Amino acid sequence: MAKSKKLKVFSLGGLGEIGKNITVLEYCDNILIIDCGIGFPDNDLLGVDLVTPDFTYLIDNYEKIVGLIVTHGHEDHIGSIPYLLQKINIPVYATKLTLGILENKFEEHDMGYDSHIFCIEAGMKFNLGVFGIEVIRVNHSIADSVCFSIDTPVGKVFITGDFKIDSTPIDGEMMDLTRIGEIGREGVKLLLCESTNVERPGYTPSERRVGESLVGFFDAYNKKRIVISTFSSNVHRVQQVINISAKHNRKVAITGRSMLNVVKAADKLGYMNIPEGTLIDITEAKKYPPNQVTIVSTGSQGEPMSGLYRMAFGMHSLVELGYDDLVIISASSIPGNEKLVNNIVNELYKRGVSVITDSDGPVHVSGHACQEELKIIHALLKPEYFMPIHGEAKHLYKHKELAQYMGMKPNHIFVSEIGKVLEIDGKSAKFNGTVPAGVVYIDGSGIGDVGNIVLKDRRKIGEAGLVLIVATLDFNSYNIMDGPEVITRGFVYEKESEALLSSMKEVATDALNECMYNCIDDRPYIKGKVKDEVAKFVYQNTKRKPMVMTVIMEAEV
Amino acid sequence: MAKSKKLKVFSLGGLGEIGKNITVLEYCDNILIIDCGIGFPDNDLLGVDLVTPDFTYLIDNYEKIVGLIVTHGHEDHIGSIPYLLQKINIPVYATKLTLGILENKFEEHDMGYDSHIFCIEAGMKFNLGVFGIEVIRVNHSIADSVCFSIDTPVGKVFITGDFKIDSTPIDGEMMDLTRIGEIGREGVKLLLCESTNVERPGYTPSERRVGESLVGFFDAYNKKRIVISTFSSNVHRVQQVINISAKHNRKVAITGRSMLNVVKAADKLGYMNIPEGTLIDITEAKKYPPNQVTIVSTGSQGEPMSGLYRMAFGMHSLVELGYDDLVIISASSIPGNEKLVNNIVNELYKRGVSVITDSDGPVHVSGHACQEELKIIHALLKPEYFMPIHGEAKHLYKHKELAQYMGMKPNHIFVSEIGKVLEIDGKSAKFNGTVPAGVVYIDGSGIGDVGNIVLKDRRKIGEAGLVLIVATLDFNSYNIMDGPEVITRGFVYEKESEALLSSMKEVATDALNECMYNCIDDRPYIKGKVKDEVAKFVYQNTKRKPMVMTVIMEAEV
Repeated sequence: MAKSKKLKVFSLGGLGEIGKNITVLEYCDNILIIDCGIGFPDNDLLGVDLVTPDFTYLIDNYEKIVGLIVTHGHEDHIGSIPYLLQKINIPVYATKLTLGILENKFEEHDMGYDSHIFCIEAGMKFNLGVFGIEVIRVNHSIADSVCFSIDTPVGKVFITGDFKIDSTPIDGEMMDLTRIGEIGREGVKLLLCESTNVERPGYTPSERRVGESLVGFFDAYNKKRIVISTFSSNVHRVQQVINISAKHNRKVAITGRSMLNVVKAADKLGYMNIPEGTLIDITEAKKYPPNQVTIVSTGSQGEPMSGLYRMAFGMHSLVELGYDDLVIISASSIPGNEKLVNNIVNELYKRGVSVITDSDGPVHVSGHACQEELKIIHALLKPEYFMPIHGEAKHLYKHKELAQYMGMKPNHIFVSEIGKVLEIDGKSAKFNGTVPAGVVYIDGSGIGDVGNIVLKDRRKIGEAGLVLIVATLDFNSYNIMDGPEVITRGFVYEKESEALLSSMKEVATDALNECMYNCIDDRPYIKGKVKDEVAKFVYQNTKRKPMVMTVIMEAEV
Repeated sequence: MAKSKKLKVFSLGGLGEIGKNITVLEYCDNILIIDCGIGFPDNDLLGVDLVTPDFTYLIDNYEKIVGLIVTHGHEDHIGSIPYLLQKINIPVYATKLTLGILENKFEEHDMGYDSHIFCIEAGMKFNLGVFGIEVIRVNHSIADSVCFSIDTPVGKVFITGDFKIDSTPIDGEMMDLTRIGEIGREGVKLLLCESTNVERPGYTPSERRVGESLVGFFDAYNKKRIVISTFSSNVHRVQQVINISAKHNRKVAITGRSMLNVVKAADKLGYMNIPEGTLIDITEAKKYPPNQVTIVSTGSQGEPMSGLYRMAFGMHSLVELGYDDLVIISASSIPGNEKLVNNIVNELYKRGVSVITDSDGPVHVSGHACQEELKIIHALLKPEYFMPIHGEAKHLYKHKELAQYMGMKPNHIFVSEIGKVLEIDGKSAKFNGTVPAGVVYIDGSGIGDVGNIVLKDRRKIGEAGLVLIVATLDFNSYNIMDGPEVITRGFVYEKESEALLSSMKEVATDALNECMYNCIDDRPYIKGKVKDEVAKFVYQNTKRKPMVMTVIMEAEV
């Protein structure tokens, strides 16, 4: 009996990947979920908009779930919550700003939610089943971020969420290192710590550093209109831009739907402080001389149709950029977005706009802890066991090296994978078994209905195009009644490739005639024969491998 | 008459883009080409392998061409030469190592070439038509790189090619700043200067710095086998690895076809100096203990099936990597290759391999001049006019800012585009007209036959898949004889989407019946009608926009 009394710890996302973070603690009949984020697909997943974790294990063990606790309001930590709640009805606990963002999501998904959503705040303690949860303040690039210290029957589990240590944050509250130190003194069985910036030495600079840098550019470009693009969720960044603009006698106009939403929500919930008369509508911006206006915009990742994108490509109905403008991109490009951002920067230069990016000065700082900050957390908590989370394999292994450097034994450190179960009892910790884990692709309004075969087809056609052979056959007289027609898409420009296409038609006709001559009426055989002959011919003559499809229609005379 | 005596300067590639560098000088009946490189396609050009410049202007003015002079042997400067020579027969002038690489290319393309290839070297002067060419030594990440000072009837044109200023290069020869200073004193009409690193402040470190850094890692990891991956063309880098290995009593084995080719060619031509007994065949590597072997490999850009890729994914028949190995990636990722390299690094960590990349120390340096080096060239040459080359718009405009900072007047600086012609006479310089310029896509064995329509189709199908409706109609009785069949690829998994597919079939049937009922025999109209109805239905029900195609076959009863 005592044998089954183990704590199981596993992640359904966020290991071996960036994004889609979700971690699960299970003890007897108690399951606690921490975060439930969304992932962004690789470019080679053509047409897939989003990926969520595989929820099979949670759905199968629905009745054991005591709750979902949330560290902060970024997409990679909350984005999959609506998809999970559509499957199972569980209570969600999050801080005020995170709940505000979640409620917007629920509205977009046309979901009711009120009865299952609970507001928590730093300093609070509460129980969910056998788990005793303490909420602790951290710094991060979105306001109201927290981490959790969780009392379990086998000891304390500490999960950091995303964090940095900012001794001069915009809202005045540093990550609660004192309480974290006390918890370390009380004894931590297992630390789960994020790994995003583990490759970077030193410290992440304070958010305040960005403000100082922006002041310099506001002074240097005091004749120009200033457009600043940043992450809409970075409420503190936007607050700094508003403060600096007010001091420089500039009005602030906002463009981009998500930026408008966030500023409205943050202002309503008390997370922003906008000096009276500073904010103007974007329609008013033209009425002021350039040096009296700041425009705050979405699009810092180069997102198509974002505010900045439309301005750069001359598609914004209200703002036209030119020699009188300075654009500051107050963000760094997330891997994979470099080209999108680059395209925008090039367009801006072509229009005569001055451009400042993070290569010109510290107009952006990360929200994640670098090596020295990670070391402080390890030193304060002195955990018995450690499992690095939130990172690709390289980040997790580097974090293991860092923990060893801090004095941990290698066999007390567990580099895991999604679905892999770490079991902990009073005496030991070891990997034991797995739970179902993976990805669900989301495309358009459907959920999870873009499978691997579909993606494989898209990729094949996307790479070399499609050749379609259609013929109508009469299986009484064994004659070709119509066709074969050869139709291509994404293969060659048909108007300039008549010779190739008519040769392909001949190859298909020969194959069909051979079948008809031999009185073959096995349609799959005929289709396969035509397809193989045409594909072979195409490859020999063009060295390409388009997808070849044959369609046989039937007509009886 | 004097009016037509102007020098025309234009680029057919390398402006507004990285790669595909080719610049042209034309005076009366004399055309001189400098470099002729290849470009690498964006990921969204699905299935395109390479891009070359549009050679229309050169082909149309073939008889005026006096020669092609080449600065160095990198793909983005020589890669399109075989494609150009297949169209027109012109003499090529390049340094010894560059010629060695070119000859390999010609063999791969099954081309004869001997009679038109001439070897040049730094310090040499020669005439081509009205142009007097002087060859000048530069430093770069491939040996035997040069730049050109070209006397023209309107004055000197100086083109830098790719360069850095390395005061401690591996081959002992610094870029010839003395001669460049003398040429500046003689007077330069127009400077064409590369812009790759114009965003980076300071100096690019010497190639020797990489050697010093590698020695540190060889000392620290003296128990492990060391695998080093770098660009095969960086002969000096490979030479340093061989020297350091020899000093550390390690044998050197080489893997990867292009690395083997280059080492063989460079050794033969005298560009390498391999201590006797150091090089072993890769098949021998297993016979030595780990700390006595260095493996030099291709794959520093994550290229699929390169040496490093095969080792990382356990597909190399002769080398298996594990806890006894250190992999050093002595390169930085070219934009767009980050994910490929990342995948390899993650795989290596999963195998227990230690990994060193340029984030761990200076195991790579750039081959291009940073801001301070660019300033030195501007200061030495003091050109009357300046046209920045080799860069996206942002690089060219930044280089313009740098030239202004060095004291040039803005109206003496020409930020150009491919095909745009700069005209210079004794008194003035101005843009005047264009020549045909663009891209030719190369896919498989065909050249230039993948056009924009084809790529657009590939992209559309690649993103949302394909829906195909085929029906056989009888236009005498106005009946549907067979079908409509609904076939999809890359859209939904058909086995799990029967309801959707049968509804689509109903929609198509209704549209066809309506046409038949109204005795419509206009096939384009029928196809359009079916396509529109089905596309509308699909979007309403799935929010997706696959490519919808209708094929109408005909059968008369």
